[in-house]
Amino acid sequence: MPETSAHSQAWPAATVRFRAGRFEAAMRDLPAEVAVAVSVNGSTHAVMMATPADLPDLALGLALNEGIAANPAEIERLDVEATEVGIDCRLWLTPERAAGYVARKRQMTGPVGCGLCGVESLELAARALPTVAGRLAIGPEVIVAAMDAMGDEQRLGRRTRAAHAAAFATANGELVVVREDVGRHNALDKVAGHLASAGIDPAGGFLVLTSRVSVELIQKAAMMGCGLLAAVSVPTLLAVGEAERAGVTLVAVVRGEEFEVFTHPGRIEGAGALSAAG
Amino acid sequence: MPETSAHSQAWPAATVRFRAGRFEAAMRDLPAEVAVAVSVNGSTHAVMMATPADLPDLALGLALNEGIAANPAEIERLDVEATEVGIDCRLWLTPERAAGYVARKRQMTGPVGCGLCGVESLELAARALPTVAGRLAIGPEVIVAAMDAMGDEQRLGRRTRAAHAAAFATANGELVVVREDVGRHNALDKVAGHLASAGIDPAGGFLVLTSRVSVELIQKAAMMGCGLLAAVSVPTLLAVGEAERAGVTLVAVVRGEEFEVFTHPGRIEGAGALSAAG
Repeated sequence: MPETSAHSQAWPAATVRFRAGRFEAAMRDLPAEVAVAVSVNGSTHAVMMATPADLPDLALGLALNEGIAANPAEIERLDVEATEVGIDCRLWLTPERAAGYVARKRQMTGPVGCGLCGVESLELAARALPTVAGRLAIGPEVIVAAMDAMGDEQRLGRRTRAAHAAAFATANGELVVVREDVGRHNALDKVAGHLASAGIDPAGGFLVLTSRVSVELIQKAAMMGCGLLAAVSVPTLLAVGEAERAGVTLVAVVRGEEFEVFTHPGRIEGAGALSAAG
Repeated sequence: MPETSAHSQAWPAATVRFRAGRFEAAMRDLPAEVAVAVSVNGSTHAVMMATPADLPDLALGLALNEGIAANPAEIERLDVEATEVGIDCRLWLTPERAAGYVARKRQMTGPVGCGLCGVESLELAARALPTVAGRLAIGPEVIVAAMDAMGDEQRLGRRTRAAHAAAFATANGELVVVREDVGRHNALDKVAGHLASAGIDPAGGFLVLTSRVSVELIQKAAMMGCGLLAAVSVPTLLAVGEAERAGVTLVAVVRGEEFEVFTHPGRIEGAGALSAAG
C-alpha cells in the first residue's frame, strides 16, 4: 500500500444548484486551501496557497527542489506553526549551509530592497539544471498501471474533483507515495519531501502527475534526479525543451491505455527505436 | 465579436504515441510558455510563466489587481522587452504613485534583504479586500450561454487542450473579451488589463473562467469590482469564504445547462430565495 494522506482536507459546503431549469439547495465537498509560508533561517522564501496536509513534506521538498538545501541533513530543524492568517513552515539550515544561503540572498537583493531588475530576475528563473543520467527501462503497461493505481488513491480528488495528485512509483510500477494538493507544484514538492525523508532515491523509479506539465514541474523532476515523469495532461513547449535538455523522459496525455512520449523515449521499452524531438 | 487573441501561440511538436499496444511517430500542437517579469520603476514585482500574448494586458491587469496602481492613469509608461531568457514588462508609475510604492516596498523589506518573517508575509498575503456592492441581475440562461460562447473563442485551448481562458461578459451575456494563458491567474489578469485600457467598468457584467477557483481568483475579481464570477470547475473552501466576505457571487461547476451558486445568490434571477452559506 502506498503512503497517502490529505483525505481529511475536504469539508461540506452549502450551494444553490441550478438543474433542469430550477434552483434547489444542495451540498458539495470542497477542498481546504490555506496560505503556507516557507521561511529559511527567519526570512521568508515563499508563500503559497496549499492543501494543509503533509506540510513537513512540502517544506522539505521545496527546499530541496529549489536548491536551498542539497539534502535533508543540511536542515537542522523544521517547525510548522499555525497562525491566524496561515501556516508558517520554519526551516533552519546547518551553520555551514546557512552561510551560503545568506550570501546568495544578499547577492539577489538590489538597491531598493526586495527587487531586482527584470532581466536579472529572469536569469535567476532560467537557472541551469542538473542532467539526469539514470538508466531506467519501464514497460509501457507499467506507466498505464501506475496512473490507474494513483487514481484509486486520490481520496481528496475523488471527494472534491478539485485537487491534483503526484506520486512516485518503482520501476516495476509499485506506488510508493501519493500526495494531493490544490496546487500541482505543491503535490510534487510533497512527494519529493517524502522520498527524501524516507531515504528513497527518485532515480530508481518514475513520477506520475494528474496535471498539465509546465516547465517548473520538469525542473523539480530534474532536481530530484528522476528520469521519467508521466502526466495525465499536455505539456507546454518550454517544458518539452527543458525535459530534452535535462535528460528527463517526458510522458504525457496518459489516457486509458494510451500515452505520448515527448522526450528521451529510450527509457521506455519498445519506444526507443522511434525518436521524439524536443 | 469579442476581442480575442493568443491563437498563434501553439506550435507543432514530434511525439512517440503509444496506442493499441504499439508505438508510432506522431505530431501534437503544444502551447508556448515563457518567463515573464513585471518590474515596477526598475525593480521586479513578479516573475511568472505565461503565454506570450497580450502582455501589456497582463502587466496592466496585474498592477491593478495587486494594488500597484489604482488606475491606468497612474502608469506613466509600459515597455515590453524580449530578452534571451524571457520577456520583461517594465512599468513606470507616475511620480506621485511611485513615492507610495517605494515606501510600501521598503516597509516589506526585512533586515537580511528580500525576506520577511513568515508571519508578516502571511499577513500581507491575507490583505483586506474591497467589498463589491454592484446590483447585477443575471438570468441563469445568460451564464450558461456565456460559458458556451467562451468555448467557441478558445483558439489556443482547442488546438492544445492545455490553456486556460478567462472572459468578461455584459449583463445580457455578450462576450466583450476572451484571454487565454497556460496560467489561469494570468488569463484573468489579461482580462482585467484589457477592460481597464478599454475603459470598461467590470461592475457592469461578469467574469467567466475555465478553471478551478482558488482564493487569488476571487481576490482579483474583488479588486476589479466585479460582482459575479462563473467557473467551469470547483472552488476551494477558502475561495468561497473570500467571495462571501468580498460580496462576490461565486458560480462554479458550470457544466452544460447546470451550475452551482456558492455565495451571494441574490445577483442571479430566481436563485436569491434560496441561501448559500459561505
